[in-house]
Amino acid sequence: MEEVKLIQIKENILSDNDQAAGQLREKLRAEKTFVINLMASPGAGKTSLLLQTIRRLKDELRIGVIEADIDSVVDAEKIRNSGVAAVQLRTGGFCHLDAAMVQAGLEGIGSKDFDLIFIENVGNLVCPAEFDTGAIKNAMILSVPEGDDKPLKYPLMFTVSDILLVNKTDMIHMTDFDMAVLRKHVLGLHPDMEILEVSAKTGDNIDLWADWVRRAVKNFS
Amino acid sequence: MEEVKLIQIKENILSDNDQAAGQLREKLRAEKTFVINLMASPGAGKTSLLLQTIRRLKDELRIGVIEADIDSVVDAEKIRNSGVAAVQLRTGGFCHLDAAMVQAGLEGIGSKDFDLIFIENVGNLVCPAEFDTGAIKNAMILSVPEGDDKPLKYPLMFTVSDILLVNKTDMIHMTDFDMAVLRKHVLGLHPDMEILEVSAKTGDNIDLWADWVRRAVKNFS
Repeated sequence: MEEVKLIQIKENILSDNDQAAGQLREKLRAEKTFVINLMASPGAGKTSLLLQTIRRLKDELRIGVIEADIDSVVDAEKIRNSGVAAVQLRTGGFCHLDAAMVQAGLEGIGSKDFDLIFIENVGNLVCPAEFDTGAIKNAMILSVPEGDDKPLKYPLMFTVSDILLVNKTDMIHMTDFDMAVLRKHVLGLHPDMEILEVSAKTGDNIDLWADWVRRAVKNFS
Repeated sequence: MEEVKLIQIKENILSDNDQAAGQLREKLRAEKTFVINLMASPGAGKTSLLLQTIRRLKDELRIGVIEADIDSVVDAEKIRNSGVAAVQLRTGGFCHLDAAMVQAGLEGIGSKDFDLIFIENVGNLVCPAEFDTGAIKNAMILSVPEGDDKPLKYPLMFTVSDILLVNKTDMIHMTDFDMAVLRKHVLGLHPDMEILEVSAKTGDNIDLWADWVRRAVKNFS
């Protein structure tokens, strides 16, 4: 089977990437640029959440966004229309961002000029979790319609993230999503995971997330 | 940047895989085993759709299911409880199935003994579209909460699939999902894509999908 060969290749790439990510993080610390890597499935609400977050924080922090997408500029245009700087990375066939790609994005946007940069990673619960982007913090969104069993299926994503936003809580009555079950699964993998229940559509609890970001940036600088 | 190196590696793997997938498809044709590769985002409803499909077809067709997951057996257990054979492939860090992995799954389940085998691919709109599994047909699910802009972001998935099931239509009133916009985006990429609007939860239009599967199997054998 092909699998073994592929694993070896991947390990080499991952080990090079870990080094590049570490160096990038040191550079960001020296510059005092706080970078949050936002990961989620397609359609979980990454861009909507960012728009809500930008609205709350753009008057007090200099915010930039690095958008990653296989093949479109839809999201970067939405972000730019919200009044903050955005660059788009087209990843082609790649289902993740690595530290070298993020570095190219940070150079493109001019990271030194920002207090806070969000990376909107490719929509995917698998590969983005495997590649350290060099970001200071990892945040993930799980949307209610995806189901409460996702930590069982994508454990690494729930392990590498510092905070989990459970989005689309306004839809919970339409589903059999059990928040207690979700919390149990998540805390089993990651006992000190911060979990916020939000709706980027209604704005519910987005203030709690904005507070978390504000505090994190303040403690960093 | 690391990207160029990674592309070369991937192309080699892809070209080997295309050959393996072609050979596997020939074998399936000779055996008269119809294989459908089902792809979607995490939580779009792959397993729920399969359970509804199995209920409608298991008395007339010998059905097997190959489940792929990074790290769990949740779905295979649900499928087995529905009364058909299932095997679980644990893909580890891999975000897709390739033809060699599918071949291992088909050997595990004993493909000759089945009229119809479903492959439930890893939950992901990127990598599964890049790897030919050797299946006879590709089906994809897009769930309404993911949004009507997904063809713009994940065009390859919509290009390689033979049929698109738009699932969770029971939630459409809770969203700004525009079915006409979705259809326009999809048909722009893939003019003869078959599109069915279904709800695996309520069972709405699942009979149309079961008819499509029944006809496809009949025409194949």
